[in-house]
Amino acid sequence: MKEVVKIALAGFGTVGTGLVKILMENKDWIKRRTGKEIIVSQILVKNLNKPRPIIPQSEPIFTNNVDEFLQNKDWDILVELIGGLELPYQIISKAILFGKHVVTANKALLAIKGKELLQLANAKNVGLYFEASVGGGIPIVQTLKESLCANKVTSISGILNGTANYILTEMSQQGLSFDLALKQAQEKGYAEADPALDIDGIDAAHKLVILIFLAYGEIYPFEKLWIKGIKQVDLLDINFAKELGYILKLIAQVQRESNGLRAGVFPAFFPNNHILSKVDGAFNAILVQGNATGPVVLCGQGAGDLPTGSSVLADIISLIKHNSQINNTGFKDDPFQQAKCLDFMDWECKHYFRFQVKDKPGVLSSLSGVMGEYNISIAQAIQKTQTKTKQGVPIVFLSHRAKLKQVTAAINKINEFDFILEPTIHYPIIE
Amino acid sequence: MKEVVKIALAGFGTVGTGLVKILMENKDWIKRRTGKEIIVSQILVKNLNKPRPIIPQSEPIFTNNVDEFLQNKDWDILVELIGGLELPYQIISKAILFGKHVVTANKALLAIKGKELLQLANAKNVGLYFEASVGGGIPIVQTLKESLCANKVTSISGILNGTANYILTEMSQQGLSFDLALKQAQEKGYAEADPALDIDGIDAAHKLVILIFLAYGEIYPFEKLWIKGIKQVDLLDINFAKELGYILKLIAQVQRESNGLRAGVFPAFFPNNHILSKVDGAFNAILVQGNATGPVVLCGQGAGDLPTGSSVLADIISLIKHNSQINNTGFKDDPFQQAKCLDFMDWECKHYFRFQVKDKPGVLSSLSGVMGEYNISIAQAIQKTQTKTKQGVPIVFLSHRAKLKQVTAAINKINEFDFILEPTIHYPIIE
Repeated sequence: MKEVVKIALAGFGTVGTGLVKILMENKDWIKRRTGKEIIVSQILVKNLNKPRPIIPQSEPIFTNNVDEFLQNKDWDILVELIGGLELPYQIISKAILFGKHVVTANKALLAIKGKELLQLANAKNVGLYFEASVGGGIPIVQTLKESLCANKVTSISGILNGTANYILTEMSQQGLSFDLALKQAQEKGYAEADPALDIDGIDAAHKLVILIFLAYGEIYPFEKLWIKGIKQVDLLDINFAKELGYILKLIAQVQRESNGLRAGVFPAFFPNNHILSKVDGAFNAILVQGNATGPVVLCGQGAGDLPTGSSVLADIISLIKHNSQINNTGFKDDPFQQAKCLDFMDWECKHYFRFQVKDKPGVLSSLSGVMGEYNISIAQAIQKTQTKTKQGVPIVFLSHRAKLKQVTAAINKINEFDFILEPTIHYPIIE
Repeated sequence: MKEVVKIALAGFGTVGTGLVKILMENKDWIKRRTGKEIIVSQILVKNLNKPRPIIPQSEPIFTNNVDEFLQNKDWDILVELIGGLELPYQIISKAILFGKHVVTANKALLAIKGKELLQLANAKNVGLYFEASVGGGIPIVQTLKESLCANKVTSISGILNGTANYILTEMSQQGLSFDLALKQAQEKGYAEADPALDIDGIDAAHKLVILIFLAYGEIYPFEKLWIKGIKQVDLLDINFAKELGYILKLIAQVQRESNGLRAGVFPAFFPNNHILSKVDGAFNAILVQGNATGPVVLCGQGAGDLPTGSSVLADIISLIKHNSQINNTGFKDDPFQQAKCLDFMDWECKHYFRFQVKDKPGVLSSLSGVMGEYNISIAQAIQKTQTKTKQGVPIVFLSHRAKLKQVTAAINKINEFDFILEPTIHYPIIE
């Protein structure tokens, strides 16, 4: 590549601004690393009149016209930081067809259209890089693609959404309700005005699809994931968790079984001594179990202008250095076969239950009777008459290992008892 | 490279065996990743008659003759896993002169002769790769060289020696003395018969020199590091640490100041909520503070056949993929200038002191008098008359921030009091 590498930047929000800040602040350092000057030569924005906190020294052309942005081809690498699906898809595919390298942080697009775009990039022999799409400043993409590539990955467990982790941490540490914690996250700029992608587990699920692709070289269709969000999380269960030596976290997880992959995103209880239980606030962490390395954990800021900008820039530099070796799948053979997706209902783990009951004789016996009927063995039962709640008294069970389908069936039956005042709460326990 | 990549393996101990195990166990997987078959074609050993737990399927030529090993050049990559300095230096330089790529896990050699060997490799345009030299299965070399390369690194703090960490963890969790914990580490195979490199901090210091090179592109001469080991660590201080909300760890640390780098290896108190305080047993962890990413933590098994073998193999695969782009310094300009090495005595931090004193009036006043004289402000003082020890009673001070030279001067003066029964113990406190 030439001495000056030109970036066409689509989108100039938080991450785009972060990228420009790093390019300015660390300009000499990047020259030391690459021997090149990296400049932003044009920027696609929605609103030309919006004030910008920072303007690149290179005085790029600003445009809000997509065609104009694409037609001027005097640049080397497209950096897509718009977000959303349709426009990024259109811009990225055109850039690839022009024979240009692409860097993107767009997890939704990669989770839904990654196969198609990577196949197109491979066909045109250009790079489609996406370190910033998972884990913000955490180098998980390169780690799975290169450093751990000799490993068969047994499982990946990740805290992949900083907003959800921030909300659960505030609930646990400050005793806030879900609604208050969410409001606080929005005030601090961690959560969007519409927080659905974060709190419904969708964002974490997009990232999980990308991690599965990198680790296994297989496509896990997004719609086959088992996804549960944190909207329903009650402070009562967070407090029971604490009392029992656990902490509630939103986890994204894939496990390799002999006959396929089991993957999902869901809130779960982590024991206090689990390394991921220490990952608080807006931090992300990913635990990879390799058949050679054993457990490897990467932890860092999962979002934000500079951390995510740093990952975008790592991709740009990687493309500059390895200009001719840019297959970004990490596989020489076809990594686009569909994974064998196992039913999450067959997953066997320990469980937490909270039944909200009328305080009357025989309740405990009825509950444990149904558990026995579905072959769920109870490890611990807690009934505290003094606990005051809106609805009756809570009874908590911790069970030994059982399949999710046994648990679901048992809960359905239990919810029909007339002494049950609220739908039963249940969380898997991670070991 | 050809369809079959041939490895010349020097040394067939723990890591060499691990490498061969992974090559056999994950053979098909590695073919998926690289499109190549990787075989071991010859092995240099000291003792031809020693029974081997595993023999590569490729039926390599075994030799104990260095000249024979080097003269047969029908291989692509030298993997040096002998350890020590002289023989590895000789073998690696010859391989580079032959124009062959080299992979090594030899931290001592890299810390002492890294500059010379990397310059030679650059001159001959071959790769000298060393992911396995720091942190076993943790991908810290690639992370510093590539993923975080756009960052100016503010500091690195690492638990880089699994043996020392295992010993300190056992002392803390099981209440073992240093001698007993060391004996147990030796029985479990974590510590060598001569454990000096591990417990004197030398091994961690070798690794720190490598991390500094990767992060800053400067050579930090080994002999300029401030190195303190853990041989003198007393259970009494580990218990005081616990009581005060800290844990004692052997840390390797470099900090960038405006006028240079400050680097050392030493036992220190970590607060219980510090992420590195949770890294127990033989695990390693590295906390990198980048000016864009903020804190990034990598954690995993710091040693062992398979984790370290996995990193060796990652390097081999990297060389196969990026055959033509193999400058492994991570810098385009000269990364071999000597760092400006700052005096550790100017480092300012909080401190822990334990004075072992005769129980008589005026002692506390004399101790705090000297502290005041050297401008060290006391944050907390603990005197427990009931604590029984071999020598008098312990008085513990925690101080606010002060320079190491103030602390050293104060301790020297205090140790001359006739009521001091043992040399005063002191540890820096990490914030």
